[in-house]
Amino acid sequence: MDTAAGTDAQKDEARQWFEALRDRFCAAFEALEDELSGEPLKLAGGRPAGRFERTAWTRDGADGPGPDGDSGGGGEGGGGAMSLMRGRVFEKVGVNVSTVYGEFSEEFRNQIPGASEDPRFWASGISLVAHMRSPKIPAVHMNTRHIVTTKSWFGGGADLTPTAPDDADTAAFHAALKAACDAHDPAYYERFKDWCDRYFFLPHRGEARGVGGIFYDRLNDGWAHTFSFTRAVGEALLEVYPAIVRRHLDEPWTEAEREHQLVRRGRYVEFNLLYDRGTKFGLMTGGNVEAILMSLPPEVRWP
Amino acid sequence: MDTAAGTDAQKDEARQWFEALRDRFCAAFEALEDELSGEPLKLAGGRPAGRFERTAWTRDGADGPGPDGDSGGGGEGGGGAMSLMRGRVFEKVGVNVSTVYGEFSEEFRNQIPGASEDPRFWASGISLVAHMRSPKIPAVHMNTRHIVTTKSWFGGGADLTPTAPDDADTAAFHAALKAACDAHDPAYYERFKDWCDRYFFLPHRGEARGVGGIFYDRLNDGWAHTFSFTRAVGEALLEVYPAIVRRHLDEPWTEAEREHQLVRRGRYVEFNLLYDRGTKFGLMTGGNVEAILMSLPPEVRWP
Repeated sequence: MDTAAGTDAQKDEARQWFEALRDRFCAAFEALEDELSGEPLKLAGGRPAGRFERTAWTRDGADGPGPDGDSGGGGEGGGGAMSLMRGRVFEKVGVNVSTVYGEFSEEFRNQIPGASEDPRFWASGISLVAHMRSPKIPAVHMNTRHIVTTKSWFGGGADLTPTAPDDADTAAFHAALKAACDAHDPAYYERFKDWCDRYFFLPHRGEARGVGGIFYDRLNDGWAHTFSFTRAVGEALLEVYPAIVRRHLDEPWTEAEREHQLVRRGRYVEFNLLYDRGTKFGLMTGGNVEAILMSLPPEVRWP
Repeated sequence: MDTAAGTDAQKDEARQWFEALRDRFCAAFEALEDELSGEPLKLAGGRPAGRFERTAWTRDGADGPGPDGDSGGGGEGGGGAMSLMRGRVFEKVGVNVSTVYGEFSEEFRNQIPGASEDPRFWASGISLVAHMRSPKIPAVHMNTRHIVTTKSWFGGGADLTPTAPDDADTAAFHAALKAACDAHDPAYYERFKDWCDRYFFLPHRGEARGVGGIFYDRLNDGWAHTFSFTRAVGEALLEVYPAIVRRHLDEPWTEAEREHQLVRRGRYVEFNLLYDRGTKFGLMTGGNVEAILMSLPPEVRWP
């Protein structure tokens, strides 16, 4: 990663992509809400189909969040929007976008590529977390972002967290991400899959958070190529996740399966609050708490 | 705090006190289970009165927990018992005792009084966390411990976490702890109340976890005096908390109040996983996960 800072045209293009992708995810997820019927609809209490509610925010000084709700650790402006749906298929799903800029505070400058020379940064991204009502349908997380200092790079990934792993879902999910990787670099998938496995792990439980996916950061194999890869990750998820949801949309579930789901969600909370760097960084640097903690499941049990 | 290491007689006396106090708490809480009737019993689904289940554990090498479930950061032995009740008044209550000994690992020696000269330690304590079914009844936490290296000291405290603060409960709780403090040192209450307020605070929310109590550590104003104070903290809680529970035992609650309770419990989880030193230290040093995370509420919502 040694490419110079991105141009304004590149920044605009990335931001517009993240916002357009957000709109496509929201539309795809609302369509799934409309499709629920039969026993699962009864189990969802006969609720009406959910719709996203969007809340825009602006970043005033150090109070605003970055792509994952973090503030970037410094002052200045920008803003974003939280889109949240509490539905009947999607028990709670958040899709956040943001574009923020400013200067990294002194304590962060030496940790960020290209920021020790000049502390100014620009960051734009999308963050998505879905917790599903049905324990048959896995939760999913995706985050992709473009960051520009005196250098420029992309980061992100997507990972799947089922209540009880389903081999067909896991295979389909990984195949979609592998295809996105392979179209850009034959080495990406193994490298980014391993990175994901190492990252989403709970050492105190000796357990993975889910069944993995990919995770990458500080990647710049040429701007156009890396942006293309980042778009491919978004497209892959937009294709494969609704397909996984539909595969299980007609399946009823038992009280015991729901209970197991709520317990497994406890592991998700443990990971995000104990280990997730974006969560901790965001909360420590005065990020938008609601945006950062939108990732927490709506209902959880530690029996 | 400059008194020399405790004698074996002192260690025995402290351990026996913690274990006896555990038995008295369990008996007092089971008695409260028996007293439930009327509308609150219906709201509790007509469940039978809860009873504690006790699970003993031994510490093999670095795998066992200390008083709060932590391992002390080093090897050797000892053990303890988790007492857990899932009842109808007490939705989930854990009372853990443990007595462990060994050597602090190199990374912890310089952080622990008296351990840089000689890494051996002995620690005994009791830890109690109660999450109540009724949103009218506050959650409570108490932990007291005796630690011996080449020095010896006591630490601990008790604090109250209501769903919606009740002035009479808060006043009664603080009055009981103040009386325990005042009987030992007129400066203790203000000092330990402030310590508690600073400790049980969520910076990212700008919120206190509850309505406070007292918190003290590394205290040795003479062994007999400090042990007497530590006993008085236990006695105070044993007196005042059942009284607070009884004050609300006949009160029914609404669905909205229950929902609010589950949301407030989210703050409790955020505190324990993001900030609580005992939790983080315990998990990082290979402590007993079940004992450490017994503090997490049985049901939680982030809507």
